[in-house]
Amino acid sequence: MAKQNPDCQSCSEKDSGSCDSTTCSKPQKLPQNPSNNIKRVVAVMSGKGGVGKSSVTSLVAVSLAKQGYKVGILDADITGPSIPKMFGISDRPVSDGKALMPIWSKKLNIKIMSLNLLLDNEDDPVIWRGPILAGAVKQFWSDVAWGNLDYLIVDMPPGTGDIPLTAMQSLPIDGIIIVTSPQELANMVVRKAIKMAKMEEVPIIGLIENMSGIVCPHCGDHFNIFGESTAQKAAQQNAIPLLKVLPLDPKLSALCDQGDIEKYEQLLDDITPLLKN
Amino acid sequence: MAKQNPDCQSCSEKDSGSCDSTTCSKPQKLPQNPSNNIKRVVAVMSGKGGVGKSSVTSLVAVSLAKQGYKVGILDADITGPSIPKMFGISDRPVSDGKALMPIWSKKLNIKIMSLNLLLDNEDDPVIWRGPILAGAVKQFWSDVAWGNLDYLIVDMPPGTGDIPLTAMQSLPIDGIIIVTSPQELANMVVRKAIKMAKMEEVPIIGLIENMSGIVCPHCGDHFNIFGESTAQKAAQQNAIPLLKVLPLDPKLSALCDQGDIEKYEQLLDDITPLLKN
Repeated sequence: MAKQNPDCQSCSEKDSGSCDSTTCSKPQKLPQNPSNNIKRVVAVMSGKGGVGKSSVTSLVAVSLAKQGYKVGILDADITGPSIPKMFGISDRPVSDGKALMPIWSKKLNIKIMSLNLLLDNEDDPVIWRGPILAGAVKQFWSDVAWGNLDYLIVDMPPGTGDIPLTAMQSLPIDGIIIVTSPQELANMVVRKAIKMAKMEEVPIIGLIENMSGIVCPHCGDHFNIFGESTAQKAAQQNAIPLLKVLPLDPKLSALCDQGDIEKYEQLLDDITPLLKN
Repeated sequence: MAKQNPDCQSCSEKDSGSCDSTTCSKPQKLPQNPSNNIKRVVAVMSGKGGVGKSSVTSLVAVSLAKQGYKVGILDADITGPSIPKMFGISDRPVSDGKALMPIWSKKLNIKIMSLNLLLDNEDDPVIWRGPILAGAVKQFWSDVAWGNLDYLIVDMPPGTGDIPLTAMQSLPIDGIIIVTSPQELANMVVRKAIKMAKMEEVPIIGLIENMSGIVCPHCGDHFNIFGESTAQKAAQQNAIPLLKVLPLDPKLSALCDQGDIEKYEQLLDDITPLLKN
């Protein structure tokens, strides 16, 4: 049986002979908007809330943009979006009649789309049920004029519900960066996200442990807040590469609150080569 | 028109004369299981992930239990549940044919129900869409043999999606404790939860600012991680009482990872009187 669907290329049943693509029941990936050309899609996920997904998303995007790549951020955390505030943007996206235009960041021209840009007030709640939330993420993929992008970074919400599921099934994600913190409690929840990605057959690029200790600004002592780093163990346990261990940095928190994350200098340049493959 | 529905007692249209309770379209609260007698329901919510909702839930429950009250915890964070691990419990709930029996905590006999207790492995992901997630929370209210409880504390997930919406509309919540951290970024997301509670007409008990600075174990200096405390300002801005400002405490993280949160001694005794009214 001829296989016309490009998604068949990555299907586990491709060579088994058991597949008839005309009756395929696997969820189909959404095609790109014909006016977009997005080369790679990288999602940042955790399962656990508050471990720094949005910071990692932003720092990956800033690192890539400083290296000269064309970068976009799709903020898929519809009910708890942090990206616009971190970049200090609040312009409302307009439509050209066909698609919604993303907002460009102030320094590096990173293209950003977030539900918070569409609200009258940044703190208005989005009280939507799951199917509508997931629909918004689909629209951010299909109906936004991303144009030419080398990388689209997707900031996932916490949990393993509608949005991560729809994103994994509908968006052509090339790889996922998993973010955790050095608490066994966080690792347990993060393992749920890792298992979900494996079940949905989305490749995992590796693990970043965030909030791994802090340096006292008074005496310079480095101490742990959430316990010893469990990064090596967590990476081994899940059979995924450890990409980076990041300390808590009050400077980063301050820049995020000021909307100046593009000014942060401790970037993630050393992991960006891993996003290419 | 006679008003038979007990929910009418708290309805804003009760005295306006415009209400006909037979055509009422307001969501109806779920009745208690006839074998339960739960006196007060308190929810702990944030909107933002990772600010310590589950820690606050647990510390409120431990404080009340140590004061002699009968306490239960309904873990409504279905896809990212932390409660069983914090209390070090992993027994699987069994049914008596009519209802599911909650698991009792080790020291204080707090009754706990969490989806993680129903999984084969604690790190198995719950890949469910919103209506199913919300249905689980309803079942944890209606189909669990809570028995006699002075307080049921509900640990909400991040966001303002299906679960918080269903919990606010279906559970007879007497009051909400809002948890935030001292970041303007967190406060912005937390305001969404506060606005949601006001829109759904669920009373807010007050605000707890968590992660408000840390004490260096080497030199004893107290310094801020996420910026200066914004607790007073956040409470005023939202016109809700400030209940407590809690520092980050590595001891608490360690006890949570060990499943020994019941051994923590810095309790929330001073706020429990506010939960009575």
